[in-house]
Amino acid sequence: MIDFRDVDQAKPYKLFKELYKIAVLENQKNVEAISISTFNSEKSEVDSRFVNIKLLKGAEFIFFSNYKSPKSEAFKLHPQITALFYWSAIDVQIRIKAKIKKTPASFNDEYFKKRSKHKNALAISSNQSQFVQSYEDVVNKYNEVLETENLLKCPNFWGGFAFTPYYFEFWKGHESRINKRDVYQLNGTNWDHKIIQP
Amino acid sequence: MIDFRDVDQAKPYKLFKELYKIAVLENQKNVEAISISTFNSEKSEVDSRFVNIKLLKGAEFIFFSNYKSPKSEAFKLHPQITALFYWSAIDVQIRIKAKIKKTPASFNDEYFKKRSKHKNALAISSNQSQFVQSYEDVVNKYNEVLETENLLKCPNFWGGFAFTPYYFEFWKGHESRINKRDVYQLNGTNWDHKIIQP
Repeated sequence: MIDFRDVDQAKPYKLFKELYKIAVLENQKNVEAISISTFNSEKSEVDSRFVNIKLLKGAEFIFFSNYKSPKSEAFKLHPQITALFYWSAIDVQIRIKAKIKKTPASFNDEYFKKRSKHKNALAISSNQSQFVQSYEDVVNKYNEVLETENLLKCPNFWGGFAFTPYYFEFWKGHESRINKRDVYQLNGTNWDHKIIQP
Repeated sequence: MIDFRDVDQAKPYKLFKELYKIAVLENQKNVEAISISTFNSEKSEVDSRFVNIKLLKGAEFIFFSNYKSPKSEAFKLHPQITALFYWSAIDVQIRIKAKIKKTPASFNDEYFKKRSKHKNALAISSNQSQFVQSYEDVVNKYNEVLETENLLKCPNFWGGFAFTPYYFEFWKGHESRINKRDVYQLNGTNWDHKIIQP
């Protein structure tokens, strides 16, 4: 579930919250799952993966990750992303173009302390996306960290990313396939609204 | 549903077909939906959207689109994409990095003829992703085309895209969050298999 804190009052944020609530009521699985697309300019390669959004705070969507992961490297090289929700329970796609940056270390420390020790043991033990000999090695390292490490201390290679949208598209599927597409685009401090063709 | 035709016999394609079958048995909604991420090098912008995979033919995943759409422009500028399935019914993510190109016009013509007239009226009438005054204008134009146009003739601005993977990652969620990640990477004509950390 996404934790909403002092959410921005502009129209696209209100729409986002409304649709989120309907999706939850309709029992959408993994409602907080979002695909994050990146461009690694050194490799000249587009990549994409799902993460879980934990917070919508003001105008920022926040998730957490290993700061040495391939996606962190891509954010550094090209700090623009596209994020995509698709809620099949209500046939709605929300596309967000945004700028992304790290959350402050003090914020990460505080957040880390409130997580379960199991999540924290995994955050500490896993060299995200690095090769490993076997799945058993992953489990063994996790169990060792669970027993031996201070699980309240946020490691410096772990923390949040916050992305701030400059573009929202709300896509609503229609059985006729004449789908509705509403675009909100940031223009200075205003959000321009337009309809685009399916 | 995805139509499988003479699918490549290599391991990652076999795994893909197995997982697809399990997802279908578990009643996964929109099992053919995949997010396609692109990079528009002129705008220096990453973008992403869901499409429906219609065919897996040999080693090519195929979907159809308007050739004047923003994604078509991005494919031309940067013909590498990442495609992402997420099947919540079985908690499986499949990440595919691939090269993308248009399907031949003869293939498009043949495919177009077999589609419903309603789908074809929409393909002909919609200037995909272009602004429009109102949703009613979209519906009116669709209805006009449905009545007046030859709905068996594939317009030259519509057709397929085929992407051929060079990388597969099969991610399987685990309740402990110690998720399994199997990577298959094309090396010449062989697929190297590795395990990566969660």
